[in-house]
Amino acid sequence: MTATEMDLSAYVESLGKNALRASRSLATLSGRARDDALLAMARMMRERSTEIGQANAKDLAAARENKLPDATIDRLTLDEARIDKVARAVEEVAAQPDPVGQTISAYNTPAGLRVEKRRVPLGVVAMIYEARPEVTSDAASVCIKSGNAVILRGGKESIHSNRALGKVISDALDASGIDPNAVQVVETTDRALVPILVKQNETISVVIPRGGEGLIRAVAAEATVPVLKHFTGNCHVYVHERCPYDLAEKIVLNSKLQRPSVCNAAETILFDAAIAADYVPKIGRKLIEAGCEIRGCAKTCKLLSDAKPATDQDWYDEYLALIVACKVVDGVEAAIEHINTYGSHHTDAILTTDIAAAERFVAAVDSSSVMVNCSTRLSDGGVYGLGAEIGISTDKLHARGPMGPADLTTYKYICTADGLIRT
Amino acid sequence: MTATEMDLSAYVESLGKNALRASRSLATLSGRARDDALLAMARMMRERSTEIGQANAKDLAAARENKLPDATIDRLTLDEARIDKVARAVEEVAAQPDPVGQTISAYNTPAGLRVEKRRVPLGVVAMIYEARPEVTSDAASVCIKSGNAVILRGGKESIHSNRALGKVISDALDASGIDPNAVQVVETTDRALVPILVKQNETISVVIPRGGEGLIRAVAAEATVPVLKHFTGNCHVYVHERCPYDLAEKIVLNSKLQRPSVCNAAETILFDAAIAADYVPKIGRKLIEAGCEIRGCAKTCKLLSDAKPATDQDWYDEYLALIVACKVVDGVEAAIEHINTYGSHHTDAILTTDIAAAERFVAAVDSSSVMVNCSTRLSDGGVYGLGAEIGISTDKLHARGPMGPADLTTYKYICTADGLIRT
Repeated sequence: MTATEMDLSAYVESLGKNALRASRSLATLSGRARDDALLAMARMMRERSTEIGQANAKDLAAARENKLPDATIDRLTLDEARIDKVARAVEEVAAQPDPVGQTISAYNTPAGLRVEKRRVPLGVVAMIYEARPEVTSDAASVCIKSGNAVILRGGKESIHSNRALGKVISDALDASGIDPNAVQVVETTDRALVPILVKQNETISVVIPRGGEGLIRAVAAEATVPVLKHFTGNCHVYVHERCPYDLAEKIVLNSKLQRPSVCNAAETILFDAAIAADYVPKIGRKLIEAGCEIRGCAKTCKLLSDAKPATDQDWYDEYLALIVACKVVDGVEAAIEHINTYGSHHTDAILTTDIAAAERFVAAVDSSSVMVNCSTRLSDGGVYGLGAEIGISTDKLHARGPMGPADLTTYKYICTADGLIRT
Repeated sequence: MTATEMDLSAYVESLGKNALRASRSLATLSGRARDDALLAMARMMRERSTEIGQANAKDLAAARENKLPDATIDRLTLDEARIDKVARAVEEVAAQPDPVGQTISAYNTPAGLRVEKRRVPLGVVAMIYEARPEVTSDAASVCIKSGNAVILRGGKESIHSNRALGKVISDALDASGIDPNAVQVVETTDRALVPILVKQNETISVVIPRGGEGLIRAVAAEATVPVLKHFTGNCHVYVHERCPYDLAEKIVLNSKLQRPSVCNAAETILFDAAIAADYVPKIGRKLIEAGCEIRGCAKTCKLLSDAKPATDQDWYDEYLALIVACKVVDGVEAAIEHINTYGSHHTDAILTTDIAAAERFVAAVDSSSVMVNCSTRLSDGGVYGLGAEIGISTDKLHARGPMGPADLTTYKYICTADGLIRT
């Protein structure tokens, strides 16, 4: 190791140790104390919006100089209105019920042991994300809410904004009598830090990468600490033979068009053969009018002359754009088979009035969210009422689907007895 | 890749694909159908005990020829009585409540979305374990119970026994109308298989290694599929100043001596300074009389002339033997600090009549099981009533502490509405 690498290792280790120490005291604080700290955070963000804005201006100037895309610059911007929005989000997290300390189950065993399974914080969370300063505040608030310390490593383009937010958050924690190391913003933009950070198994409980698929795959490949992955989704809408036309049109268009760039937007529409001749041309026309390109199976292309022929790859693709794949399938079993073969187990919908078809689809489709007669776009922690969403897990272990503060907890068994021994 | 490596890769891939297909049909079977298959398994094991015994005899002959230790040979043995015990264990699993399909929570959102969080199987489990044929049957039954397909890779010394058990299990599944690929025993003893198996992310949901720490570390180092780890434990008993002597003696001796070789046996006893002068000599004497070596801090050594001085390493060690570390600590905070610094977050006990001390210990000790006034040896899925235990997780994500069939499940969100869209 070079001296710099040693410095970096020592720095990352100290981040982990500081966070672990802070997490231990955070874990035994009352929910009230954690909520008070969140309210102090929100207040101080508003009070010090000029200081945050000035730091953000440095990032924006550099971004413009480096000719970053407008969308990136937009996500990077923290003006007065955005700061107020971010502060309001922190207040909303504070207002949610406390997930920590809940009794998940409790019972007495026949031998006289009282067993309680109680929800406790995970410990230390490491967030790795792109140049979106809002995530700094969102992640900090969800972690404080759930009693976890957090290490925040945002994109280098947002470093000044993140440092300024980190300073405000630390001051708010300090003023609330909480160890300010409960929220640490990584000070360096050195890319060599990430591979070291994701191997701190002694101090960090979980790594959450948030951003594009490339970022997530890179983190997962390096990490020895468990990673909660959050890939984009290849979501389907299956229009069953017993789906009224109006329902089909309404849900297909909303699932595909309401916000095509996000993970719960639909990418493939499966039309049942029984209604295809009627529905494909009508709904296809509406999609095309909305600017959507259609890539269809042979039957779809016959029914809709504007559709391009789909390749096998199209069934796998997450377009995240105004493109949609369409396929005519023979019944619910064929729809299930297609979704389980080509899908990404994120969110898939069936539209039907037939209760048996709906139940079969719900049971057999191996996805984290299965929608019956509603839009795939509703697959969201906010919509589900989980509180602030920290991601949509595409893993099956620990947390699956939309994740709220409770998903950043584990549990401990507390066993009480009057001198019980093992015999 | 050589031809053999290609064959091995193709074989492992086919194991994964067969298991995934079987898991999909298993996931939608009724609990009754899965229980009936378990009862058929138990019945056929008894009926075909001669066939299983003959296969086991081959393993035992090879083990004796290779001069394996008596303990290994004992664990390898499947005589008539053992087969009956194994079959009874399968029947007990069948008698447990079905974890699959439980509604974890269900509610309507203000917007009119019905949200249900429903327990579903994980999919495909890969078990990697040492030469204990009992695990083949235990793991198969817990996986069928929880609706998962399983790939079983036991130690090479038990290959004939495992194959025979696998054949009986497959026949029982087949006779029950279940895809026999739901339980697959790996046919080869080639060690090159494991690194390939633990990278089948497309088909396998979780790897559970079961055996010594070396096996678990080796699997965890190779795996890209999530691993549920199950390390041994460095468990503590803290004797608080307000612990009656009889309680201290009873629980310390049981925690250390009842079965010293297992992960929930105590390795370090922390005596509060207020009672050390009285309790250390008396309890120390009892431990020594039971054949236990004592490694003590300076104060312990002063109070007990037979104690050897402990090194810093002793506080970390899991002896799994008749050795115990003893330390005198100043109050509950010092005990917590010691346990959180040197412990393995497995199982730790406090002995006290003081409710505030107990509550502080329970809240602050970062362990999967915290015992109040009872033995660390009670930390066990059977004792907790979880049903058949498939391990004690030392991870914090997904499952923590003793794991039963329900810990081999995940959940899906099922959202129902009458045409609800995202606006």
